[in-house]
Amino acid sequence: MIETPYLLFLGDAPDQLAAKVAQGIKDWRPEYAVGQLRLEGCKADMRIPDMTLAEAKAAGVKTVVIGVANRGGVISPAWKTVLVEALEEGFDLASGLHNLLRDEEDLAAVARATGRKLHDVRIPSVKYPIANGEKRRGKRLLAVGTDCSVGKMYTALCMEREMRDRGMKATFRATGQTGILITGDGVPLDAVIADFMAGSIEYLTPDNDDDHWDLIEGQGSLFHVSYSGVTMALIHGGQPDALILCHEPTRRHMRGLPGYPLPSLEAVRDMALTLARVANPACAVVGVSVNTQHMADAEAKACLAEVEARLGLPATDPFRYGAARLVDALASV
Amino acid sequence: MIETPYLLFLGDAPDQLAAKVAQGIKDWRPEYAVGQLRLEGCKADMRIPDMTLAEAKAAGVKTVVIGVANRGGVISPAWKTVLVEALEEGFDLASGLHNLLRDEEDLAAVARATGRKLHDVRIPSVKYPIANGEKRRGKRLLAVGTDCSVGKMYTALCMEREMRDRGMKATFRATGQTGILITGDGVPLDAVIADFMAGSIEYLTPDNDDDHWDLIEGQGSLFHVSYSGVTMALIHGGQPDALILCHEPTRRHMRGLPGYPLPSLEAVRDMALTLARVANPACAVVGVSVNTQHMADAEAKACLAEVEARLGLPATDPFRYGAARLVDALASV
Repeated sequence: MIETPYLLFLGDAPDQLAAKVAQGIKDWRPEYAVGQLRLEGCKADMRIPDMTLAEAKAAGVKTVVIGVANRGGVISPAWKTVLVEALEEGFDLASGLHNLLRDEEDLAAVARATGRKLHDVRIPSVKYPIANGEKRRGKRLLAVGTDCSVGKMYTALCMEREMRDRGMKATFRATGQTGILITGDGVPLDAVIADFMAGSIEYLTPDNDDDHWDLIEGQGSLFHVSYSGVTMALIHGGQPDALILCHEPTRRHMRGLPGYPLPSLEAVRDMALTLARVANPACAVVGVSVNTQHMADAEAKACLAEVEARLGLPATDPFRYGAARLVDALASV
Repeated sequence: MIETPYLLFLGDAPDQLAAKVAQGIKDWRPEYAVGQLRLEGCKADMRIPDMTLAEAKAAGVKTVVIGVANRGGVISPAWKTVLVEALEEGFDLASGLHNLLRDEEDLAAVARATGRKLHDVRIPSVKYPIANGEKRRGKRLLAVGTDCSVGKMYTALCMEREMRDRGMKATFRATGQTGILITGDGVPLDAVIADFMAGSIEYLTPDNDDDHWDLIEGQGSLFHVSYSGVTMALIHGGQPDALILCHEPTRRHMRGLPGYPLPSLEAVRDMALTLARVANPACAVVGVSVNTQHMADAEAKACLAEVEARLGLPATDPFRYGAARLVDALASV
């Protein structure tokens, strides 16, 4: 667990997109994002107060989160100066960069000397069990996609917000680096050792209240040959009661695999459901989340209507049009 | 790659079963198994010459393989004495034990001093790539099971032997610790990091002659919730042209999962084939390998006839009745 609230370190981000981790935290956990720290030349802005480390300390910040990715994922000397100072001032650090904080000798030395924590969320910090397949109490939803990066994380986060607004018990369960930094906890599934993948998801979604929903962030796709094993482990380790299908209709081929066409939503539905019922015979597909960001409003609405009629399931873009219909659909589970 | 030939170290094996790694090497790579080394009280016997280290040296042995698992998988003091001496005499060591050779300080120190290699096949020694899904030359077969431990490794090894006897080009590709020790090479898939699982299988089964078959050792089952992600990675990383279904008909539930019934062969066929065709649209299921070790001859033959009629595929127990019919079936691929 990463201690909250956060100061979002934006460094010298070349543009807004480079700070997408910070944006995610600000969008989905605004209560954690009390301030931002920008270096000279920073082109990103979260529209929250700029703070020095001293101001952040006074505002109760516990952790400085690296909310930016620079080219190559490395920690530059200019960043290092601030990060060392942050440790000395008593903050923990959290990062999802490939360049691990702990591998920087000066950061590691200062952290040891000051007793502060370095959270490298790219790699697991827990020794996960092998999955035992035992039925757990509470409800679980998993977002499964036709492809990687089609909006599975945003779908689950949109649903969590809608459910909490309705007073329902819901917890987004992060399985990737950005999700972990947003929520302060989770499993970096792509870095877990093969034998423990499903077990890590069981660990992430333990027994809970009967009316509590875990909203599990999906990863990869059963139809993406590079990462399908990770998706499989989510389906069996998560033992979902409900599946949401996620799709990006303008994509021409599987991400990073030019020769591979996207599967149909029907193919994903049938495959994911059959596999999910091995772990939970009551599992149902309850809705479709379509990422319409590359479509104009009229085109997006026509696409959603077509998908809804074809699949016989509520279809929406939850980030654009709200997650209400997807949450409504959970009532039937 | 582990250098061959081997001296099989049986230690103080309490029974024959404890030496199953040595048995596998002796059964499948007799040309590697030039001798055995047994300590006082050893109850296992490979029926190959007992040798001292000096005799093994004279016989050309390169590597001493720990062919026995003792309770807890630890390296005892009595073993240690022999293993240190082996390093000093110029042998490499290879082991699939959980207790890694490299974690034993005295072994590591002697290996460093003598320049010998410690092969811990339980963990990967290669930095595998992420799978790229590109079509590779040559043919590949994968054994997929209704459950774990139903005979996938033996099926592939039986087929390799039959194919080599016929002068066909065939290579067993090990994906587990025992298979790696038998053949001296392979991928310990259960210990690979999630993102690199499929890539490790692409690495294991590279471009080859058009008439060469890789016979890939299967792992887990798509229907085993603890390990299904590993199976999935084999199906997509291996991009098999042919699948053999493996089954153990007397099993009452999935291995280690009392609440989970076994899937039907039809369910495994349909699921595995649909998924395999994502990576290789030409993939076909060519036969069924039934592990009949717990059945009398008449019962086994009746079972095989029933499976063959029901599935419309050649069915045999290749270890008991030979792999000829499974190999014949490859002609159609």
